[in-house]
Amino acid sequence: MAAPIVIDSANDPRIAEFRDIRERDLTGRENRFIAEGTVVLRMLAEAHAARRGFSAEKILLLRNRVDGLQSVLERFPASVPVYVAEAKVLDGVVGFHLHRGVLALGKREDRGEAALLDALPERALVLVGCGISNHDNAGSMFRNAAAFRADAVLLDETCCDPLYRKALRVSVGSVLSVPHRRGGKALDLLLALAQRGFAIWTLSPHGKTDIRAIPAAARMALVIGTEGEGLPEALLARFQSARIPQSDQLDSLNAATATGIALFSMASTMGRL
Amino acid sequence: MAAPIVIDSANDPRIAEFRDIRERDLTGRENRFIAEGTVVLRMLAEAHAARRGFSAEKILLLRNRVDGLQSVLERFPASVPVYVAEAKVLDGVVGFHLHRGVLALGKREDRGEAALLDALPERALVLVGCGISNHDNAGSMFRNAAAFRADAVLLDETCCDPLYRKALRVSVGSVLSVPHRRGGKALDLLLALAQRGFAIWTLSPHGKTDIRAIPAAARMALVIGTEGEGLPEALLARFQSARIPQSDQLDSLNAATATGIALFSMASTMGRL
Repeated sequence: MAAPIVIDSANDPRIAEFRDIRERDLTGRENRFIAEGTVVLRMLAEAHAARRGFSAEKILLLRNRVDGLQSVLERFPASVPVYVAEAKVLDGVVGFHLHRGVLALGKREDRGEAALLDALPERALVLVGCGISNHDNAGSMFRNAAAFRADAVLLDETCCDPLYRKALRVSVGSVLSVPHRRGGKALDLLLALAQRGFAIWTLSPHGKTDIRAIPAAARMALVIGTEGEGLPEALLARFQSARIPQSDQLDSLNAATATGIALFSMASTMGRL
Repeated sequence: MAAPIVIDSANDPRIAEFRDIRERDLTGRENRFIAEGTVVLRMLAEAHAARRGFSAEKILLLRNRVDGLQSVLERFPASVPVYVAEAKVLDGVVGFHLHRGVLALGKREDRGEAALLDALPERALVLVGCGISNHDNAGSMFRNAAAFRADAVLLDETCCDPLYRKALRVSVGSVLSVPHRRGGKALDLLLALAQRGFAIWTLSPHGKTDIRAIPAAARMALVIGTEGEGLPEALLARFQSARIPQSDQLDSLNAATATGIALFSMASTMGRL
């Protein structure tokens, strides 16, 4: 790791990317993102070291956190600068009281959809999100994907960016460990998966097949829509649909919970758990 | 329903209970609670009509919401006053911009633990929460309990109150439809259930039995702990423990998702879904 550099002014240009982070979303700009908290920092270090398409550009810490973070900081190459500041300065930079005191600026490299799909193993479970606009749900979906060893998460262009600070935090850093890509239209994504031998299963409260009864296949994709409206009818009609049996008294499960149950069920069916 | 009464001052004593609701938690006081939004208001109307231990004391609405809510308001007896106010007055009462414009003051009647337990059917699935302090998780647990037709939710005294405004909203009103009680020590609760023939299954990432392999029983209880620390060792050691098989790379699933998966699995085992 690099020797820590003390920052004593909130206006120091070296840490300008961390300014007012609550108000801004860096992800739209040059594929930069903010990693927050010890767990996410550790995941970023691993992703950086494993060259999983993410790299750290700089780290900004509360001065008194440095000692406790040694083992994490050592995983970053010395070329990644580590800036430290007192609470007053740090809070002035970010624009609110930063309780955790651990931030990093990361960069994502987009290798393209074909590269991601071509790299999938022969036996694969993939999660596809369409129109997931809620950062909590996006983050939870990645956490579930990691828990049940999904090989990739694909998000259509109408989904929010999972590298957005809050989604990344809710995912407990899984956005940095599960291969993923966001972009393109849902139908094109699903056709590309079908062409590669994936059995496509859309999830809907009105799906035709009980999620526990879907047949095992070497390659399976689970497709999730937004919590309110669900998946567009055109997609539901074109591909096989599954449902999680539940009380008809309630609208439906929370999107993140439904994703977790469906992934658990499909991973069980595939004999992966 | 009662004829709407116009409120034109935020200081009107008739709607004093709605003042600054973000800052206060009414649940601790005389078992009153705030129901927010159309869905929760409808659930309150149903709970009130069915005498499920909840009653509505008063309703406060944005004036322009009244027409659209007729079908819900009609379910309340005429003895429940309906107050209406313009946005400016309403926001002045609650202390922030109340987007939805739908509030009610409810009252809970505590019938005691024994009454709740004695009323459980011969075949029953019960969810028990220990130390669930996060309102989001508490609300989600109720939503899952409703989705998978649990017969009751029991919370120990260290859990947060599920009638707190945010938990109630996240539950999509399920706190008003699934019989529940909060109070007592976790061990005492579990012993009372065991005495009534319940097979007790604690959930832990290190649980002994795969959740898919636990044997069916007429009466089953699922016990959930806090997301970070999980259940106390003393409880895990005393009762049977189950785990959701998952990647060992990750801490654990989100508490709400884990509850959903475990309830789904147990309800499946019991042949209820």
